[in-house]
Parts: sequence; C-alpha cells; structure tokens
Amino acid sequence: MCAKKQPAVGLSIDPAARKEKAISVLRDAFEQKLKEATQQGYDLPEGALVVDEIPADAAFKKTVEIAKTLYDQIMESGRFALDVPSRSSSNIIYDENNDLLLLGDKMNRKWFHSLTSVEDMTQLIKILEIVNQLLEKRIHATKREVFYNDVNLFKEQVNSDNCIEDLSTVLNTIRNSTNIVASAMGKAVGRLRIRDQRDIIDLEAMGSGGWAITPFLDNVEIIESDAEFVLVIEKDAAAMRLSEAKWWKDYPCIIISGRGAADIATRMFLKKINKVLNIPTFCLVDSDPYGHYIYSIYLRGSKKLSYESPFLATPNIHLLGVLTRDLDSYNVPKECRIPMNKTDITRCQQMLAESFVQKNTRWVADLELMMKIKEKAEIQSLSAHGFEYLTEEYLPSKIATADWI
Amino acid sequence: MCAKKQPAVGLSIDPAARKEKAISVLRDAFEQKLKEATQQGYDLPEGALVVDEIPADAAFKKTVEIAKTLYDQIMESGRFALDVPSRSSSNIIYDENNDLLLLGDKMNRKWFHSLTSVEDMTQLIKILEIVNQLLEKRIHATKREVFYNDVNLFKEQVNSDNCIEDLSTVLNTIRNSTNIVASAMGKAVGRLRIRDQRDIIDLEAMGSGGWAITPFLDNVEIIESDAEFVLVIEKDAAAMRLSEAKWWKDYPCIIISGRGAADIATRMFLKKINKVLNIPTFCLVDSDPYGHYIYSIYLRGSKKLSYESPFLATPNIHLLGVLTRDLDSYNVPKECRIPMNKTDITRCQQMLAESFVQKNTRWVADLELMMKIKEKAEIQSLSAHGFEYLTEEYLPSKIATADWI
Repeated sequence: MCAKKQPAVGLSIDPAARKEKAISVLRDAFEQKLKEATQQGYDLPEGALVVDEIPADAAFKKTVEIAKTLYDQIMESGRFALDVPSRSSSNIIYDENNDLLLLGDKMNRKWFHSLTSVEDMTQLIKILEIVNQLLEKRIHATKREVFYNDVNLFKEQVNSDNCIEDLSTVLNTIRNSTNIVASAMGKAVGRLRIRDQRDIIDLEAMGSGGWAITPFLDNVEIIESDAEFVLVIEKDAAAMRLSEAKWWKDYPCIIISGRGAADIATRMFLKKINKVLNIPTFCLVDSDPYGHYIYSIYLRGSKKLSYESPFLATPNIHLLGVLTRDLDSYNVPKECRIPMNKTDITRCQQMLAESFVQKNTRWVADLELMMKIKEKAEIQSLSAHGFEYLTEEYLPSKIATADWI
Repeated sequence: MCAKKQPAVGLSIDPAARKEKAISVLRDAFEQKLKEATQQGYDLPEGALVVDEIPADAAFKKTVEIAKTLYDQIMESGRFALDVPSRSSSNIIYDENNDLLLLGDKMNRKWFHSLTSVEDMTQLIKILEIVNQLLEKRIHATKREVFYNDVNLFKEQVNSDNCIEDLSTVLNTIRNSTNIVASAMGKAVGRLRIRDQRDIIDLEAMGSGGWAITPFLDNVEIIESDAEFVLVIEKDAAAMRLSEAKWWKDYPCIIISGRGAADIATRMFLKKINKVLNIPTFCLVDSDPYGHYIYSIYLRGSKKLSYESPFLATPNIHLLGVLTRDLDSYNVPKECRIPMNKTDITRCQQMLAESFVQKNTRWVADLELMMKIKEKAEIQSLSAHGFEYLTEEYLPSKIATADWI
C-alpha cells in the first residue's frame, strides 16, 4: 500500500520548501488580480433587476409599504394589482462582464379579479403576511414550514415556493432577507474566526469535526483570518482527509466542505469570506461533468436563483482540480477511472455550450479533453497512490505549479 | 398566521412554571431507571460474539498477531486458513435482555487453496495490510478510499467493503477501531463541552450553527455538561428551529441533528454522551414508519452492523414524538397529514413484526393506531400552529406530561 508513484510534476521533495514555493506562487498569481477585483459590488448591466441584500428592519418596512399600497388601491378602486418581476427563462440574462446570470427587468402585472388570479394573489399576500411576521419576530422558517403554515391555501409546496420567490423579487431582495431559509449542509474548518451573535467561533479549534454552517447568515460576521486561500471541497471524504491532517496548519487556508450540491447557505458563507478577506479561492471536485457543474454554481450561481446571483456567486473562484488533464499528469491508474455514460456526455456538451464556459479557454480545453478520453474519476481515486497523497503531493503540487483553471 | 390552537394537553400557560414542571417530571421519571442502568457494559448472552471497542495500539498488535499466525501456517504446511465469523442472517441473534441485535459465534473457515478462495483471501489479507498501516500511521480512511487503494485487486467496492466487515469481526472489534470510517452527517449543539485532541469545544458557543460531528471519535472525550437530557432530531429543519431559539438555554439539553438516516458516527457520538452523562435521551422523528425505523436504529442498531450493536446502540433512548396519537392530541390539521402509501404500510407491518417492538406495548399501540388511521405527518406540520409552536408548546408539553414511548 501507499507506494507513492512519482508525481508527473517535478517539484522539490522537501515539504517545507514545497510549501514556501506554493505560497509564493499563490501570492504572485493573485496579487494584481485581487487589487483589481471589485469585490464590494457589481456594476450590473442595463436591463438587469437590481436586487439587494437588506437588513431585517428594512425588509420589514418594505413589507409594510407594499401592504399599504395594496390597501390604498382597494380603498380607491375596490381592486388591486401587484407588479411581479418575471422569472421565466426569457427574462434571464447572462452578464458577460461580471460572469453572472441575472434576472431582467420584465414585469408581470398580477391582478386580483379572476377566479384563478384570486387564488394566486391570496397565496402571495399570505406569504407577505408570513414574511412580515418572521421579520418582526426576528425568527427564520424553512420553505416546508411556510407551506405547512397554511396548507389549505397553498395545497402544494410548489405554490408556496413560487410565491416566496415572487415576493423576494417584489421586495427587490434575496430570499435570505425574507428570513425564509433552506437547511445548510456545509461545514467549515481552518484559519478563520467568526462571530455569530454573541459567540466567537474559532474554526481552528473544532477538533477533527468542523463548524456546521448556519443558514441564518445575517447574524454571522467574519472577524479575522491569517489564511492565504480558501479551498471548497465537493466531497466530504476528501475534506475529512484534510481535517485529519489539519492541513490548514501547514497550508494556511480555510476549508469548506460542500457535501455534494452547493447549497445556498454554503455559497453565501463562501461569498461572505471572499468579500471580507479577498484571498484566492479554489474548488476541488470530482473529475466529471457534475463536478465541473458544481464548480460553476459556486462561480456564477444557478439559473433557478438568477436574481440572487450577485449575492450567491463567487466569480473569482478557480477550479484547482481534479482536472481531466490531472488524470494523466498524476498517474491516476486506468482501473480507477470510470467510463463516462450518456448522461455524463450530454452534461459535458451542455457545459461546453455555456457562454461563461466558452470565454475561458483553459476550461474549454479541459472539457474537450474529457469529451475525448470519455473518462471520469473521483477525488478519492488519488488514494491509489496512498491515503496521504492528496494532502502531501497532489494539492501542494497543484498550487506550487499554479495549475488551475 | 401563528394563531395558536389550544394544545390538547392542559398545562400551565406560564413558560417558567411549565419548564420547572418538565424538568421535575423528567427527573422523577428517570431517577430510578438511570441508577439501575448498566451503561458501562452489557451482559451478552451465550453464543454471541463478544466484540470490543479497542484502542489503536491494541488493534495494531492484533493485526500483527494475525499476520504472524498466517506466516507460521505457511511455513509449516505451505497453506493457510483464517476463521471468519459468519455474518449471514442465520447468525444474527436478538438479545431480548439487552434489546440488541447481535452476531452469533458461527464461524466460516476460509482457506487459501482454490482459485476463488485465493482471490477472496488475497483481498482479505490486503485489507489486513491496509488496516495495519492505517493504525501504525494513526490516520483514518473511508471505505471508498480503501477500495481505490487497490482497485485492480478489489474490482468492485462491495468486495473491499465485505473484507472490511470480515476483518473487523476477525479482530473482534468494531469497524471504527480499524480506522476505516464513514463520513458523518450529524451535528450537535447545546450544553456540552468536549475535547478533541488538543481542542476544547463548547457546544453552547456555536452561534446558530453547530459542531459537525467527526467520524474520528476515538479522539473525542466528553468533558462536562449540565444538560438534563439529550434530544436527537431526525430532520435538520426542526433542529434549526431549536438552534435559532437556543432552546437548550431554557430547557437544559444537548441537541443532536441526525439529518436523516442515523449514520455510524452520529450513533457512536450519542452512545458516548449517554455512557458518560447517563441522562434521559429522546428522539424526535416524523410521524411515519420510516421515522419509527430511524428511532429503532438509535435504539438497538441495524441488522447490517449487528456485531457492532453494543457500541452503536443507545438502548435507553425514548421516542418522544411525533407519535401517531399526537396528531389528534396536538390538533395537526387534516390537510397537513399525508395518506400512507403501500411502502409505508408494509414498513409499518414489518416494524410491528419485530420482537423488540412487540415487547413494548406502548410502541405497539402507537404503530397499531398508525395502521388504523393510515396517516403520516412530518415534524414541520406542527408549524400549522405557528413557527414557534414546536419549541414553545409541543416539546415542553410532551416532556411535562411524560408523554413518550
């Protein structure tokens, strides 16, 4: 076991020298970029809906204003309408400058008059009432709880979910600002101290566990960090390996374990770190189209939540691995590679057709190589070279040779 | 919204008085039981394989001893054999006294001579080698990593997984003692301080997040706690509600969020708390056969890992809710209840057929009621009475009326 095959990339064998090299490569590569980056805000294109992350008291005031407008309309004409930004795909625009998916400014006017519209509007107004009360009480609820809160009215969860998205766009805010949140799967460890209400949490002192990321991120504040970079990992098994090695002690970093799909809270937390610390950010995923897709969610958001993109996306995150070209460069044995199936191939083609992929030639090259060799591999396949290969060879070598997308 | 329907169970409306009542009910109900409990060890029946949780150095020594025995056999006769406890269902016994599923003492002698047995044995010996090295280096690996470590030999993960279980039983130990672990999904918060290597972790100071439970539990030590009870919750959404309310401040407890299926690390952590603190332990699950099944996993282990039962089961855990009878007692609206489907009904029948269910008349009664009304409901359905109903009415009332199974 653990017979370490020579890594293809020739680097110093001395771990300390390699570490120094890696840190200096990182600093050189990002010094200029990070200075130029305007992390604090985006310059959104014309025609894009400008949404904002707003504090609870401002969101609360907005709900009251909307209710007041509706009331005035009813008093005046006996009927009322509400302009709701369209969330149909024709109203989703790709902002090339910022590499973001955004919602356009197309509006649908919803009337309270016909039999169907009465039901729609009653549901939407109920959500307005619920959000108003959540914000007033300063408590949060999940979408499922909101549905159960008036199951007679909503009938199916898809209806209450839709109204929640609609109300967020009406309020020009992100869903988290409505205090309706989703369960968070991610965990974080490493060189970071945060404040969550009155608790100061040191993410270096979590043992071999981690801090389970809260969905109530409005209360969370980044206090301090001496990390040189952030590493987001798709698979918890790989994150466990880094946790056990306390890898951040050697390579000063913050490690976020996404545990599969990139959920909203995990993305918001990453975004928050990125905004405050402004340090290089990397993603480590399986070498397959789904891994690249997960990376893309961190990078520029999902279509479903396009209007929230500026608050969920981390546009300067880089794909560190496992790249298709790594399979040969790091001698991943043929037997550890899995032939791509039809779904993989379709997914890969879809990725290649995305404009945000096409503008990155290095990314296109790697996906084209994937289409050519039609092989995928998991992060864990690196353990063919021994269980410590990931932390002692692969990651140090990737960083020291600036080998990312 | 949040119009609180009167709970069926008449209790003081004053929250402080209700809390005092709940704590005193708890203390009265468990005082005698906990004194009698022999948490430190089980008296296993004859014919049960006695496995042990052993420290890394002892496990390491055992691997060396086995290798030595094999070597001696080869030197003597040129061939060798290993006695492996049978893990077939005919060798699984139910220990009524301890309410546990256990492995019997039936053995299979595996020879290294025929074409198929050579492959089997080579795989098993490879696992022996891997475990030996993991223990020597004091590192852990996942089953998936072990598979990838020699994919040529194992061919499919089911083979390496089987060898891992086999070797654990040969070593008379639990899988965690082989340093091959599974990813942990659970998180914990509340009145507990633990030590994990050199870190002291205060589970009351995790903000609204939590401590992500580590699978490397051999390093974790329970330091202190002033909790009166432990509450294990199936659904993270419900755990979030309790986290946000910092419910453990009012009701002194430790909250474990299992996030669905009860994984090994979460069960071991619960067991560890139970063993050291010896306080009442409750489970809160959805009101459906799967919820009852999850509770049963915490209670007495799973058939698949029967030989590890004494180290994974918490035989004094009680099912607090959501019981079938709660649906009426707590006025869960008809619209929030879901008709049971065929799978639910089969599962419920299977639960009723289990001997460990049958010996608990209160449990049988609740499952029979479920079979009668054929309705299920999620924990979140309680939010029909308002988002704070769970923390302010349901749980306090359940405890104060000693209404558990």
